[in-house]
Amino acid sequence: MDWPGRFNDCTNNRLEDSEIAAIMKVSAAEKALSLAAGEPFGALYPVGPLQESFNRVLSSDLPIWGYSNTRAGVAGLCVWIAEWMRGDGLLPEWVTSDNVFITNGSQEGLSLLAECFLEPGDTILVESPSYPEALGVFRKSGVKCLGVPLLADGPDIEAMETTLAGQKVKMFYTIPTFQNPTGFTTSDEKKRKILDLAKKHDFLIIEDDPYRNLSFVGFPGGTYIHAAGDDERVIYLGSFSKIIAPGLRCGWVVSSGEVTEKLVKHRVMGTLCLPELLQNAILDFVTGIDLTRHLKRLSDTYRQHRDALLSSLREHACPEGLEITTPGGGFFLWGRVPWIRDMGRFAYFAIRNEKVAIMPGDIFFPQRGQGIDTIRLSFSKVIPSMAEEGAKRLGEALGKFRTAQEERPL
Amino acid sequence: MDWPGRFNDCTNNRLEDSEIAAIMKVSAAEKALSLAAGEPFGALYPVGPLQESFNRVLSSDLPIWGYSNTRAGVAGLCVWIAEWMRGDGLLPEWVTSDNVFITNGSQEGLSLLAECFLEPGDTILVESPSYPEALGVFRKSGVKCLGVPLLADGPDIEAMETTLAGQKVKMFYTIPTFQNPTGFTTSDEKKRKILDLAKKHDFLIIEDDPYRNLSFVGFPGGTYIHAAGDDERVIYLGSFSKIIAPGLRCGWVVSSGEVTEKLVKHRVMGTLCLPELLQNAILDFVTGIDLTRHLKRLSDTYRQHRDALLSSLREHACPEGLEITTPGGGFFLWGRVPWIRDMGRFAYFAIRNEKVAIMPGDIFFPQRGQGIDTIRLSFSKVIPSMAEEGAKRLGEALGKFRTAQEERPL
Repeated sequence: MDWPGRFNDCTNNRLEDSEIAAIMKVSAAEKALSLAAGEPFGALYPVGPLQESFNRVLSSDLPIWGYSNTRAGVAGLCVWIAEWMRGDGLLPEWVTSDNVFITNGSQEGLSLLAECFLEPGDTILVESPSYPEALGVFRKSGVKCLGVPLLADGPDIEAMETTLAGQKVKMFYTIPTFQNPTGFTTSDEKKRKILDLAKKHDFLIIEDDPYRNLSFVGFPGGTYIHAAGDDERVIYLGSFSKIIAPGLRCGWVVSSGEVTEKLVKHRVMGTLCLPELLQNAILDFVTGIDLTRHLKRLSDTYRQHRDALLSSLREHACPEGLEITTPGGGFFLWGRVPWIRDMGRFAYFAIRNEKVAIMPGDIFFPQRGQGIDTIRLSFSKVIPSMAEEGAKRLGEALGKFRTAQEERPL
Repeated sequence: MDWPGRFNDCTNNRLEDSEIAAIMKVSAAEKALSLAAGEPFGALYPVGPLQESFNRVLSSDLPIWGYSNTRAGVAGLCVWIAEWMRGDGLLPEWVTSDNVFITNGSQEGLSLLAECFLEPGDTILVESPSYPEALGVFRKSGVKCLGVPLLADGPDIEAMETTLAGQKVKMFYTIPTFQNPTGFTTSDEKKRKILDLAKKHDFLIIEDDPYRNLSFVGFPGGTYIHAAGDDERVIYLGSFSKIIAPGLRCGWVVSSGEVTEKLVKHRVMGTLCLPELLQNAILDFVTGIDLTRHLKRLSDTYRQHRDALLSSLREHACPEGLEITTPGGGFFLWGRVPWIRDMGRFAYFAIRNEKVAIMPGDIFFPQRGQGIDTIRLSFSKVIPSMAEEGAKRLGEALGKFRTAQEERPL
């Protein structure tokens, strides 16, 4: 069968392989010590309380077995999310639970928003670097992703203005808090400036915010959606993946009612509805525990992981040329090794030779060939003893790669 | 905000409202006795065994909390499905568990297949009538759906040949067994003829088969995918929704390896992965029970429901002009009321005036204005005492509608 002759243009030409998945696969096959995985620390999954929540829901009279009647998500969970976010000062006045739409993780939110808005030939702005699976969704839609350099306090405003002077953009996709891959957080001042630009040049802002509650610095700044006030141009994506468990596949979108309505319609065509069992278990869990304490436990642990990895890296890998930043929350350290001219090549070298996996930074850049000396290191799953061993292996790998590179230059 | 000015063409112009959902909503609001819902009978959900399966999985060491590593679905479930279908003689030699891809219900399978293959401007063949949420997915993709009249033993072959002589079609979407909405089953002889046409005119066959195991007539005939043998042009969709519980959101696609590979990539961009808890619970359930006995219990009950509704309709509604067919399985009775010139109008009349809900047949036709005298009646959830009352109300509604129509003709 001539399958490429039957697949559509998107499938043949715009559907990308996940480079993250490719590296994770080799890493697993080589049994490498992983500083690469953007996943929560398994020991922090609240398994006991979740089991109890599931047991309560499974033995309740909740309508979990039939088709869902609430195609936007379980109503009680939407109400809880709206109240929780409002309590944290993250929502503008106009948002009610009717503006909350539950998704199979934020990825479904991104994908449905792309289905709502994007047309081949459109141009959008993204942070450079940014989350590759989001860029993949956008590129699959046939749009051009223009990168705005991301600085430690947020996007480079001048570069953004220059880009906006040159073309019409439809939206700006941003992860403002403890960004993936950089760990950077956009300052509230920059958020206001970017909102002004969004009004002036009339583009939407997609605010992807899964790491907010894993803060090592207290309140990590406000949301775009709150700062925008009456202006409904910000669409907010939240997720339970990093604060409860990604296997429950539960995120949410907060958007203008007209957008929510279209999301519901795209949902019906895409999957009819989501499994209510999972949403009800999450609702039971979040209302049954001391959430503040739970989130503090997560943040404390991740801060310890960050500190241990930073300290080990400084001892074992920085002497080999690694430069590293200190994030205020989330899962990731961002850095560079100025003498490396192809971090992807180094990544496979390190996995195969020293059994340590890192994520090459260039895969996070919207434009090929950028960030070839950059690196993402994940501390989320790395306990202190692993951090020491991982940093040692990384240092070793860097030393050996430098020798190899000197012997056989690119 | 000018939202329509921001939405893409698909969202503004190709994304349809679900007419089924609209009728169900009014039906629920009016507390109507429903002969409309295409859902399983709630009392048949195997709640006890499912609770036990969930409890076993929740307290096991299975990796249900993190991101799924198997983006095509839980490997054990794919193996089980392949073995089960092979045991029933439904699969050709080339299919292994690697060709099985788990979905959030068959709707996700349809949607991902549309994403793989369809391009605006394509033409596809569908049965006339057919399942509206499938037609909605195809039309959302911008394709033209040409209807092939469906007869009691399957598609009208001559009509199909005439259509194929006039244009190139990319695929044929069919529900060959106990079809929704007609309950009709395509004979094996017709399947062979259609496969010959598919080879001759080089189109794919999408075989949607969720009702197969709810048979009142024994083995309901083979599958297209088995009949096609080495030819990998048939893509098969199966579902646990009708035989376990739709709330678990679990279906599957069997397809050529090259198609499965693309489905996985579209899945990653669409949702990353599905919740493994649900798939593991289903695997535990199907391997732990006597499945043959379970399916016989379902079929026996649905046959009783069919017989009771048929008998009550013959007594109370057929005298008002309802003509009705007898399906060999599934959920639906298909019929017509020759004197009705707008079944949609009758549907709302019946809900509001007699508190009985039926599904107007015209919404199932790919071409507007067809089947305006046709009707779908669902017996799945209708216990015999409800059947009697429902048929009485339907008879009353027909009588009153006839009077109203005579007084105020369309």
